[in-house]
Amino acid sequence: MRIPAFLPLPMTAATAILQMICPDQPGLVRELSGWVAANGGNIVHADHHSDPGAGLFLSRIEWQLEGFGLPREAIAPAAASLAERLGGEFRVTFSDCHPPVAIFVSKQDHCLLDLLWRVRTGELPMRVPLVIANHPDLAPIAEEFGARFVHVPIRADIREQAEARHLELLAEHGIELVILAKYMQVLTPAFLAAFDSPDAFHRVINIHHSFLPAFKGAQPYHRAWERGVKLIGATAHYVTEELDGGPIIAQSTVSVSHRDEVEDLIRKGRDTERLALARAVRLHLKRQVMVYRGRTAVFA
Amino acid sequence: MRIPAFLPLPMTAATAILQMICPDQPGLVRELSGWVAANGGNIVHADHHSDPGAGLFLSRIEWQLEGFGLPREAIAPAAASLAERLGGEFRVTFSDCHPPVAIFVSKQDHCLLDLLWRVRTGELPMRVPLVIANHPDLAPIAEEFGARFVHVPIRADIREQAEARHLELLAEHGIELVILAKYMQVLTPAFLAAFDSPDAFHRVINIHHSFLPAFKGAQPYHRAWERGVKLIGATAHYVTEELDGGPIIAQSTVSVSHRDEVEDLIRKGRDTERLALARAVRLHLKRQVMVYRGRTAVFA
Amino acid sequence: MRIPAFLPLPMTAATAILQMICPDQPGLVRELSGWVAANGGNIVHADHHSDPGAGLFLSRIEWQLEGFGLPREAIAPAAASLAERLGGEFRVTFSDCHPPVAIFVSKQDHCLLDLLWRVRTGELPMRVPLVIANHPDLAPIAEEFGARFVHVPIRADIREQAEARHLELLAEHGIELVILAKYMQVLTPAFLAAFDSPDAFHRVINIHHSFLPAFKGAQPYHRAWERGVKLIGATAHYVTEELDGGPIIAQSTVSVSHRDEVEDLIRKGRDTERLALARAVRLHLKRQVMVYRGRTAVFA
Amino acid sequence: MRIPAFLPLPMTAATAILQMICPDQPGLVRELSGWVAANGGNIVHADHHSDPGAGLFLSRIEWQLEGFGLPREAIAPAAASLAERLGGEFRVTFSDCHPPVAIFVSKQDHCLLDLLWRVRTGELPMRVPLVIANHPDLAPIAEEFGARFVHVPIRADIREQAEARHLELLAEHGIELVILAKYMQVLTPAFLAAFDSPDAFHRVINIHHSFLPAFKGAQPYHRAWERGVKLIGATAHYVTEELDGGPIIAQSTVSVSHRDEVEDLIRKGRDTERLALARAVRLHLKRQVMVYRGRTAVFA
Repeated sequence: MRIPAFLPLPMTAATAILQMICPDQPGLVRELSGWVAANGGNIVHADHHSDPGAGLFLSRIEWQLEGFGLPREAIAPAAASLAERLGGEFRVTFSDCHPPVAIFVSKQDHCLLDLLWRVRTGELPMRVPLVIANHPDLAPIAEEFGARFVHVPIRADIREQAEARHLELLAEHGIELVILAKYMQVLTPAFLAAFDSPDAFHRVINIHHSFLPAFKGAQPYHRAWERGVKLIGATAHYVTEELDGGPIIAQSTVSVSHRDEVEDLIRKGRDTERLALARAVRLHLKRQVMVYRGRTAVFA
Repeated sequence: MRIPAFLPLPMTAATAILQMICPDQPGLVRELSGWVAANGGNIVHADHHSDPGAGLFLSRIEWQLEGFGLPREAIAPAAASLAERLGGEFRVTFSDCHPPVAIFVSKQDHCLLDLLWRVRTGELPMRVPLVIANHPDLAPIAEEFGARFVHVPIRADIREQAEARHLELLAEHGIELVILAKYMQVLTPAFLAAFDSPDAFHRVINIHHSFLPAFKGAQPYHRAWERGVKLIGATAHYVTEELDGGPIIAQSTVSVSHRDEVEDLIRKGRDTERLALARAVRLHLKRQVMVYRGRTAVFA
Repeated sequence: MRIPAFLPLPMTAATAILQMICPDQPGLVRELSGWVAANGGNIVHADHHSDPGAGLFLSRIEWQLEGFGLPREAIAPAAASLAERLGGEFRVTFSDCHPPVAIFVSKQDHCLLDLLWRVRTGELPMRVPLVIANHPDLAPIAEEFGARFVHVPIRADIREQAEARHLELLAEHGIELVILAKYMQVLTPAFLAAFDSPDAFHRVINIHHSFLPAFKGAQPYHRAWERGVKLIGATAHYVTEELDGGPIIAQSTVSVSHRDEVEDLIRKGRDTERLALARAVRLHLKRQVMVYRGRTAVFA
Repeated sequence: MRIPAFLPLPMTAATAILQMICPDQPGLVRELSGWVAANGGNIVHADHHSDPGAGLFLSRIEWQLEGFGLPREAIAPAAASLAERLGGEFRVTFSDCHPPVAIFVSKQDHCLLDLLWRVRTGELPMRVPLVIANHPDLAPIAEEFGARFVHVPIRADIREQAEARHLELLAEHGIELVILAKYMQVLTPAFLAAFDSPDAFHRVINIHHSFLPAFKGAQPYHRAWERGVKLIGATAHYVTEELDGGPIIAQSTVSVSHRDEVEDLIRKGRDTERLALARAVRLHLKRQVMVYRGRTAVFA
């Protein structure tokens, strides 16, 4: 076989990404790739997954925009027709469109700082115009990275007003994704009903400081220490109405020993939390995650 | 500093190991190491742990028998005096005494075969004169490695007789440690009361096929698959009356993805089970594990 | 979207697997999936990779044989036409055809025993009719698992005759894959020229007991100990003429500390060797590995 | 055994730490612990290691200062007498004395930012009064965290003057430890002779972006990509005259696949570099590392 000469493509060439989930049937890979090819698209990545138990087919196709026959604004409508015919759901995004993201925080800074730093280095293709917090402590970090910081206090008796304010702010900034970066508050079903898409493409990511489903709920490090585990973990997941029960995107663990006190677990946990959250957010932004049956397919 | 010439010691030189747990107080390291030194012992390893919350001190000291002033049979009595004075518990063992161990199995062979192979290679300093099973399937493996295989069926209505038979067999072979290598049966409190030491030195190790405390109980792989986790695990722990609640010795995890079906989790799990169990058994046999407050100190 | 009722497919349904590597060009995913679909095939997995630097496209498509329009014997010829047109190389295999594999060993038993056990449990879809060894020690293991054991001594002065004997045995058993399971001998270029396919589909897998490219060559554990590393590793790779330089399939590592002597590294290494080798062999047998530019694409 | 009531000690209680390395002989654990006990010290941690090959004994003992019979300033002189008698080297430090540390950087910010953030959270018991850089880019980060930033350009023809300036700055700030946080420059033997302690207690830590000894020298990620490895790593080590050859303190790895380009390796590498470096610096500051025979004992 002839191997062509070494011709590195420009890495920054913009691509389109089609995600599709629909009932499984023969010919779907051909159908989707054929649609791209018929319009002159050069596929860079194509990933598919069939869930035989549910009879579902999930697909992610990424192709170069340069040379593609349809203009950008015509791609989503065309995909919509395709999805309708297949009885599925879809999403079209472009690799050079960095969506506006809001980060919710409380007092702990490690996840916020880590995310903002990764945005600055170009690891995370997103913009962060807005940081919402129930405590004022982290304003300086947000401001240093050019994000608007809004302090919205939360108490049981004012939760409704607070979430109304959240939704207002999210709308004002056209936010597409909310990241709970150690926010330590539960979002209400009403908030999720108003902001989230209840389908394959959820829009709220949380980091929980345990290896779910172990240690759901409050104070997981204290309970992990009490139980005497030899590994602790962190779980990044989409938020649903069930507390700590949403689809898992990424998990990571780190070893602990009897020499580690609770504060050591908390310290070690900060690293594993940052890694799991950053990984999940990147997978989400690269459109490598789809949700079905309460679980995720991760095309990585 | 003068570095002495390279003089590798014989690795097989026998050592004595003293494990002690007692209320914490100043001077304990000196007390224990002083006792060894006063009898001319050369310490090879010395590990200590203080639990300030419980006011406990745990120690493991290993020294060369060659040149030690006390004969073997006098060491445990001398340590007993020491322990009595300190208000603690102790155990004395010798590195060249390989204790007789019984392995309980059901139908799955991977942990049994792995343990027996590790005994043959010298990784696990133990003898396995006895394999007890509630199904006859694994008799050939036991016999190939020279262990007596006894089939003791278990049903709810004959559990009492079965466990009486177990205790009889354990006594007959002078068994010091029981390993549940995917035995898939719960031991009764009566059995534990008869065989286990309810203190720092437990005598029954189990491998559970999940990352405890996640997925306690039956069918952990099915439930892990259903939950859509991204890591599965295995936990080796001492058995206590609380199901899957005993002190954890070792845990390990392995990545899974949406492409993995339940049978893939089971397949991957076999590897992580073998590793966690083998690690725990070796730590136990090397006397590197002590239990306090429902947790283990592992001096590794 | 309507989710179909839960209808688990039989997991044992036979599939066909097409692997293709060819110069990249637009439309290849459609071309390949279209060919499957045109014959009524239902694709179970489809993985593709483009190497823009080399202008290469690699693909692996797996579809159900049931209902496929071509009989088995017609699939490879049809794929050959496709490959010729695309200027590429290809391989067609069937998931229910377990190829005959030969394992080469020396004196260490852990990799041999592990592989044979995994074959017996169904983890590795292969048959092992032949074990070749330059020492007689492992005959009992081979025989226990029903493999023919042939002792072919190796010395510098008889290497040529020995390899002639190897090739004779491989031909006699129709061997498709050779696994060097701690064989500790170098294969000559002449042997590789006679047995290996010098293309995307190599046929000899070796396990090297270091994290390549660290510690190429002899005695890696001794050198790792001497260097004072904190992690040791194992590397499973295809064998090429360059010693320890072939395409890497799988690597794994394990922590070590200053307490570990060389023999501890060897002991811990046995586990990581077994895991890396078993993983690589399974990936190879599942046809999830392809070689290009001295490296592997692993569709896992 | 009576378990004392739960009485958590204040975690912030200051401790003294004695590190000692000397020729091995019977009685050393007693000797050292006895000296602490004789002065009324309550030992919190005691770790020892014997290297039978070298005939060396390494020890780290940590005890509470409260109630200890000697005033702080008398402890080092007393330990010096002990060390002299035993023919060894020693170091005495106090847990509440945070040494002044200088960080050397070039243009990459991730390790610098990570270290400074960890200092602020209290994870790293050190102060950073000084950041030295051969490029001006990172001045804002240093200044945000209150460190003096000094830009000292480096070229082959002015290396001597630059290092003279370095030494001047280190002296001015009383620096005890230098961390090369992606400094990308080689320190000369003359610099090391002037600043480092050529013994068990080195004073310069570097992070190298490969799994040493693989990919010593320049551009390790490019070479790792070229080789097609499946894991990349990072190594934190003490700097000696031999390039990338100093004693290893910590190593970490992360998986890569054929989908990862060089820039992905660099991106993933930033995480593993940060973790390995932070771990090594913390171990150093906690006085858990000692060097002997070109390797480290890490009491963790």
